[in-house]
Amino acid sequence: MFFQKEFRLKPRARGFHLITNEILEQIPEIQQVQIGLLNVFIKHTSASLSINENADPTVRKDFEAHFNQMIPEDQDYYLHLDEGSDDLPAHIKSSLLGSSLNIPVTNGRLNMGIWQGIYLGEHRNQGGARTIILTLQS
Amino acid sequence: MFFQKEFRLKPRARGFHLITNEILEQIPEIQQVQIGLLNVFIKHTSASLSINENADPTVRKDFEAHFNQMIPEDQDYYLHLDEGSDDLPAHIKSSLLGSSLNIPVTNGRLNMGIWQGIYLGEHRNQGGARTIILTLQS
Amino acid sequence: MFFQKEFRLKPRARGFHLITNEILEQIPEIQQVQIGLLNVFIKHTSASLSINENADPTVRKDFEAHFNQMIPEDQDYYLHLDEGSDDLPAHIKSSLLGSSLNIPVTNGRLNMGIWQGIYLGEHRNQGGARTIILTLQS
Repeated sequence: MFFQKEFRLKPRARGFHLITNEILEQIPEIQQVQIGLLNVFIKHTSASLSINENADPTVRKDFEAHFNQMIPEDQDYYLHLDEGSDDLPAHIKSSLLGSSLNIPVTNGRLNMGIWQGIYLGEHRNQGGARTIILTLQS
Repeated sequence: MFFQKEFRLKPRARGFHLITNEILEQIPEIQQVQIGLLNVFIKHTSASLSINENADPTVRKDFEAHFNQMIPEDQDYYLHLDEGSDDLPAHIKSSLLGSSLNIPVTNGRLNMGIWQGIYLGEHRNQGGARTIILTLQS
Repeated sequence: MFFQKEFRLKPRARGFHLITNEILEQIPEIQQVQIGLLNVFIKHTSASLSINENADPTVRKDFEAHFNQMIPEDQDYYLHLDEGSDDLPAHIKSSLLGSSLNIPVTNGRLNMGIWQGIYLGEHRNQGGARTIILTLQS
């Protein structure tokens, strides 16, 4: 059985953001699923989805600091410059972190660890409202 | 319902390549699927699959330049040297970018964003024809 | 058809470890599957799952060396320090490499390349026994 829903996240500032609750609000159908999988897919090339620590906000700040260090703006070897200094690094961050997640569903809930949450990586300065597709299988 | 197909991509030079069309040609069965998921899996440890910008070829060039900077050849701490300077960095790039994609299917099409395409990361100098498995669920 | 199983891996030292056999021992049900997919999910934010070279142990050593170089401990811009120098880098490595894998199943076997194996990235100094969820679809 497949259930699919497309929706837009609230716009967010550049950085990493916990979006677990905003996703769960969109898909109460999970509560009916005994065993399944949820695919979360982001339809953009300058934002990302990943899973990480859901408690301490400094983890998200450190992610933003470190990814900016590891993939700096304005490297002299970059050719793709037309859309601003934040654009090409945003593409690289998106491919490194990934565009989709596949999370087990068990007894009506996402079966993640207690410290796991879903991160939106907003890698543009002005990314706007990002579109997500949820595909629930059971 | 599962449909699965294994095939080989055309050989490509080291770098990042857009392979969306080459994949879609292999799986016209997608056109019959209302709601589903496509898993794309690469059976190699020195090439990768990711999703990124499908319009400007300089993005792919910048990816190659930046990944070579971030995972350089011939670091003095590398031990795995027997298969050439390009081999160990290729393995690291493959794990960073990933070996598979899971893409929603909606109304007979891959439901990606309009700027999204599927990238082959060919991380060896002479990688040859890479083998892909497509698994379509509906 | 869904089959799901949660279990704990043996505890391992910090570094990269081949866990393909330990996973397969947990899921003999794969042998009954003609076409399917196996999702492997790790319920932790400081360990990772990826696919890479299964033959030469120096590849795993080089991964550990390079990831420690690319995501160093004790950067002056890190704020999340309470759980030790290895903690924040472990979170970043986990998101870069990923928390889950999706592997095709064909004729009763994981349909990976002959050189592919499943890596546990244990990114903490004392990570303990990590919990895995296997979800098999057919």
